[in-house]
Amino acid sequence: MKLDKLVGERFKEKPSDCVVDSHALMVRGGYMKFVSNGIYSSYMPLRRITKKIENIIREEMDRIDGQEVSFPVVMPASLWEESGRYQAIDNSLCRFKDRNGSPMVLGMTHEEAAVQLVREYGNTYNRYPFMIYQIQTKFRDEARPRAGLIRVREFTMKDAYSFHTSQEDLEQYYAKCYHAYERIFARAGIPETIVVESDSGMMGGNISHEYMLLTAIGEDSIAICPECGYRANMEAAESIIEPLHDDVSEELTKVHTPEMHTIEEVCDFLKADPKKSLKAVVYQKNMTDEYVIVFIRGDLDVNETKLTNFLGENIHPAVITEESGIVAGFIGPKNLNAECTVLFDASVKGCNNLVTGANEPDYHYTGLDMDRDFPDAEYHDFAKIITGGICPVCKKKAITVSRGIEVGNIFQLGTKYTKSMGMSYLDEKGESHTPIMGCYGIGVGRLAASVCEAHHDEYGPIWPMSIAPWQVHLCCMKSADEEAHAAADKMYEDLQDAGLEVIYDDRKVSAGFMFSDADLLGVPVRVIVSPRNLKENVCEVVTRDKTYSAKVPVEETVATVKNLVNELMAKCKAE
Amino acid sequence: MKLDKLVGERFKEKPSDCVVDSHALMVRGGYMKFVSNGIYSSYMPLRRITKKIENIIREEMDRIDGQEVSFPVVMPASLWEESGRYQAIDNSLCRFKDRNGSPMVLGMTHEEAAVQLVREYGNTYNRYPFMIYQIQTKFRDEARPRAGLIRVREFTMKDAYSFHTSQEDLEQYYAKCYHAYERIFARAGIPETIVVESDSGMMGGNISHEYMLLTAIGEDSIAICPECGYRANMEAAESIIEPLHDDVSEELTKVHTPEMHTIEEVCDFLKADPKKSLKAVVYQKNMTDEYVIVFIRGDLDVNETKLTNFLGENIHPAVITEESGIVAGFIGPKNLNAECTVLFDASVKGCNNLVTGANEPDYHYTGLDMDRDFPDAEYHDFAKIITGGICPVCKKKAITVSRGIEVGNIFQLGTKYTKSMGMSYLDEKGESHTPIMGCYGIGVGRLAASVCEAHHDEYGPIWPMSIAPWQVHLCCMKSADEEAHAAADKMYEDLQDAGLEVIYDDRKVSAGFMFSDADLLGVPVRVIVSPRNLKENVCEVVTRDKTYSAKVPVEETVATVKNLVNELMAKCKAE
Repeated sequence: MKLDKLVGERFKEKPSDCVVDSHALMVRGGYMKFVSNGIYSSYMPLRRITKKIENIIREEMDRIDGQEVSFPVVMPASLWEESGRYQAIDNSLCRFKDRNGSPMVLGMTHEEAAVQLVREYGNTYNRYPFMIYQIQTKFRDEARPRAGLIRVREFTMKDAYSFHTSQEDLEQYYAKCYHAYERIFARAGIPETIVVESDSGMMGGNISHEYMLLTAIGEDSIAICPECGYRANMEAAESIIEPLHDDVSEELTKVHTPEMHTIEEVCDFLKADPKKSLKAVVYQKNMTDEYVIVFIRGDLDVNETKLTNFLGENIHPAVITEESGIVAGFIGPKNLNAECTVLFDASVKGCNNLVTGANEPDYHYTGLDMDRDFPDAEYHDFAKIITGGICPVCKKKAITVSRGIEVGNIFQLGTKYTKSMGMSYLDEKGESHTPIMGCYGIGVGRLAASVCEAHHDEYGPIWPMSIAPWQVHLCCMKSADEEAHAAADKMYEDLQDAGLEVIYDDRKVSAGFMFSDADLLGVPVRVIVSPRNLKENVCEVVTRDKTYSAKVPVEETVATVKNLVNELMAKCKAE
Repeated sequence: MKLDKLVGERFKEKPSDCVVDSHALMVRGGYMKFVSNGIYSSYMPLRRITKKIENIIREEMDRIDGQEVSFPVVMPASLWEESGRYQAIDNSLCRFKDRNGSPMVLGMTHEEAAVQLVREYGNTYNRYPFMIYQIQTKFRDEARPRAGLIRVREFTMKDAYSFHTSQEDLEQYYAKCYHAYERIFARAGIPETIVVESDSGMMGGNISHEYMLLTAIGEDSIAICPECGYRANMEAAESIIEPLHDDVSEELTKVHTPEMHTIEEVCDFLKADPKKSLKAVVYQKNMTDEYVIVFIRGDLDVNETKLTNFLGENIHPAVITEESGIVAGFIGPKNLNAECTVLFDASVKGCNNLVTGANEPDYHYTGLDMDRDFPDAEYHDFAKIITGGICPVCKKKAITVSRGIEVGNIFQLGTKYTKSMGMSYLDEKGESHTPIMGCYGIGVGRLAASVCEAHHDEYGPIWPMSIAPWQVHLCCMKSADEEAHAAADKMYEDLQDAGLEVIYDDRKVSAGFMFSDADLLGVPVRVIVSPRNLKENVCEVVTRDKTYSAKVPVEETVATVKNLVNELMAKCKAE
């Protein structure tokens, strides 16, 4: 490919709407173009990257006996009504009517379609286990698309679905897929991806894992215990902290706290540590608007996913009305006179001498003692885990919280979809059972962006050889020089004849211009032909990651480059 | 791949909803499953076929310097408002609102997205020409999906867009693409595909061609002149027939034709040949409901595409009200007292002694002479071309009309999209111009189904080697026989080691059952291992198309099969 024919523009200025490096570099490098909020078109370099990623995924899915199929993007709503998700999912599920008025949805995931495809086939035990997968466009009407390809509305995803006759069989297959995913990320150039336990969310099921690339720009928080290796997504990580119990319990005392509505204001005023306060966080259930008050230690936050999972229904931050009886800013568990669900977070279990609201304007209590004043209270885990928390596995006070991008996930779904959609099989004895499912997803574009996040410098991406848009970037310096141009043309032919993927820049532009374009394209091996080098009968061969740089005799250049490409490719091998 | 693990069911009975063979065979063979009207999921065999087709297309597009990109499935309506198609296209364009109430569309074609992607890049002449393409999901909310994959609502399409600075340059590239398409169809196994001139329809532009596979189940009609080789789609083919002019013109006479509303009834009653009648066909314009009456020879039909193109707006069959002044069933050009557009088809030019309506209930005229009675009439071509018509090129009365499936199309779009969407470039002199576009489409699933239509027998598809789901179908007869099973297992390994794609059937089923499954999968080469053959130390090697059948010594089988595969692959070469 001649660079001067490559469609797309490269430029220096960081676009103002790009908050993460991968986004900025991929816009600046002519990889992608904004079409609508969370919707992009890809130019050739990105399409070449995603095709290579797709092929790696395909090979690894085929290795674990996956069968590539294809499901529709547009599905009848009736299919999603069968599983109950047509009602259950919020407006991230795109719903519309076709020309005949039939309600349809855009596929954001394909559990329903997978069950529909194999419902009849899977009617007898001896056809199990099997796994089907596809690589296809998905649409999720995200409220807040962000960070370029990290969180979009339209994306290409590999989604796989396995079907089993026993939990043991699912677990065996799940383990295979777990390792296939490790291989995929290693082959795509991010072997540093870690696996964490996760919450299953809207997918249903119990056990699930997320593959996380740790990076400050990640939108997920991951609890990690460096002592025992425990890792979990915030939603799945149990928050354990030591109860703050003073030896002497003070009296419960009502104090005047005029115009102090936040726990910070009150604690400031009373010279109390927010850790010694009981904060109320108020939600409403989506379906009924019923109030739910969570009492939690003042310095902690509620993890809404944990709360949703506990309640079994969706919630939203409350709008507190006067009729509710709730006195916003002064809420406490004592003398709370309102119709609502009251929950206590485990963080306040056994605590005393707490500041909390008195349920009347401008008054708080001090000296609350949970055991004394609420001996019957039940405690559950609703808190966001924090650095310094106690590891739920090794019980050491060692938890650290890191940010990460979720590059893949695997779920043990159980029978959520097979049961609701009436899929069953007959066993050896002719008895009917419901098959058990697993599902396994990877977003292709997000993976590309994640690799870029992990491997770039200020000048551009540093693509791993396995997914680089091209393997070799050939630069002809001073291409007005006929001899240099002819030598570069020949090198272009020779490199291609050696089976290498080459992008060739013979534009009449300055070296600086040429190299900054090359940096933006991030091709791992660069070959520079120039009149000066030719005088010494050499080419410069350098790698984008700067680990290799040499002047190589012209006649040895192809062999050197070929070796270098093979070496760099070997770095993208899975164990 | 072991056949007993292949997800999908094969069965004998023709599904009642399948009207064409490819549909019936692909449902019976476990290739596809109905999800919703015009929406299907694919099982692994079809996905393997479509992947191979996609790769053939990709290679041929890359050969003519196409750059693979990707456009979104979901696009903002604003993009389609720029081109004017948001309003112009009927409800086959799927429109909906996203969670923020922004109007969106599902891509049915991507001219707008292509212009949006390159609008800035293409701002200077020296970047031209270039071509970008994608292979992606499209959705067209067809009123009448039919015939399985022949006409669906959701489909995978390769769509390509080229950009040029002159008509000559477009024409040169168009010719390249024309040949690339011939190569694609030859490589996919249907070199018999013919090219016809076509109408550009909603795409805009002037010159366009369709690639047609002639078959009785096709939904397009193609006019062919065996004398000169002229070929055109019905919409594009000019209908020319000899005027029927009697030597003596009769008087215009009003006759009583009680209760005779159709031209057949009237001609029967008056013992007139329908060819000697002037039939009125009444439409209304979609936008204004204004009436349009086309007068045409009684035995011919109006081609609505020709009429739409002439009017420059969409029409529908009329609902004739009393207020309109139109006397349904008795309409004629004489004494027509209604507000409407009156058009004459070229078929009645110079005709005399015609029967036509008298514009009053139960009366017709005889003896209408167009030249005498309507000396100022203008004539245009609105008629559907018929077998026996005059060839517009060689002028011989030799036109035949055949049915065909459109497997691809290419358009010279001109500046329809670039102009409306404000794309321009500066030439050498710094003057601004509008680039010229071409676009080029192939439906992947329809191509698969078309190949099946062209190559099947009553037992199943006969896939060309280039796109067959597997190259070799290995059958182990009487697999309960340990020796036979071991020999077949070894053959399975050996064939795969030779780089062949093998589907292996070692189920304990009857030969009849095994072969009917093999016929349905349509794999080109079949190898049969059986205890009886093994006694003679041979395998049976046969081709699905029955052109080859031999008993081959076991140790020579792999080499024989490999040769056969190569020979059959060579049949799918393009010139």
